[in-house]
Amino acid sequence: MMDGKPLLLDPYGAAYLQRRLVSEFALAIHLGVQVEFAGDESVVLRAPLVLNANHKGTAFGGSLFSLAALAGWAWLTRYLAQNELAAEAVIQDAQIDYLLPVTGGLRAVLQAPNPLDIERFRKMLRRAGRGRLLVSVDIHSDDSVATRFSGVFAAAMRSD
Amino acid sequence: MMDGKPLLLDPYGAAYLQRRLVSEFALAIHLGVQVEFAGDESVVLRAPLVLNANHKGTAFGGSLFSLAALAGWAWLTRYLAQNELAAEAVIQDAQIDYLLPVTGGLRAVLQAPNPLDIERFRKMLRRAGRGRLLVSVDIHSDDSVATRFSGVFAAAMRSD
Repeated sequence: MMDGKPLLLDPYGAAYLQRRLVSEFALAIHLGVQVEFAGDESVVLRAPLVLNANHKGTAFGGSLFSLAALAGWAWLTRYLAQNELAAEAVIQDAQIDYLLPVTGGLRAVLQAPNPLDIERFRKMLRRAGRGRLLVSVDIHSDDSVATRFSGVFAAAMRSD
Repeated sequence: MMDGKPLLLDPYGAAYLQRRLVSEFALAIHLGVQVEFAGDESVVLRAPLVLNANHKGTAFGGSLFSLAALAGWAWLTRYLAQNELAAEAVIQDAQIDYLLPVTGGLRAVLQAPNPLDIERFRKMLRRAGRGRLLVSVDIHSDDSVATRFSGVFAAAMRSD
């Protein structure tokens, strides 16, 4: 089976999500979003401070929210693609808490929801054609969590 | 007293806030923020859909959040300047609810908090050097409220 191709190439990895983020969100390029990591258990997005700074040299709250929301969308979009669910994810509501100023590059870390919640979401989507899932994203500054985001995403099966 | 200048020119009106938004937030120009109205009772910001769209042709949730947060910052920044309070406003936490997709230009309408809350905020800022204020912003799509935002802003007197 060794024919020179990597055996474990992930078709829904960082390059896939990078391409989708930049092609599907007009603002993504201006935020400078880069997918650092994409896996089943987590997605990590980064953005440079210079594109997202306020005049005090810290990250703008709207940029932090946007990066966290894109991390949520990216993880869920990966999950839907991997599971061959022809559905699209949209954000429904969110809460964000700014604990510390972000004084360097922005780094949003999404940890996957727990498996029971994911399974419940998948079943709802299959049965009812729509489902909702809560995702949490932390934004780090140096070694501390600077921003906490919790957002509910809704997915609906495409009718086409 | 008539010397050709308008008598009631507001030094902290739309042009003032436009200048501050664009000079203080790197992302503001990419969002295409325009101050439509700035007054004591309300601030209205607009942004074109084309700069803030996702591939479905509706507004990105991060752009809607950003525009609402900038409306809150703008109203509070105007209030601080008008009242000669040498303080800066930063967002502390926020909740956002996406009720309907926004399919045209984004228009964020902030209605001023009630006078008692504003007065309590002003007193705290004077006495303790810091204060917090909850502001609410609606984003309209056609004639409906498409997005509701509530954010707590903190202000601290500058020590310089």
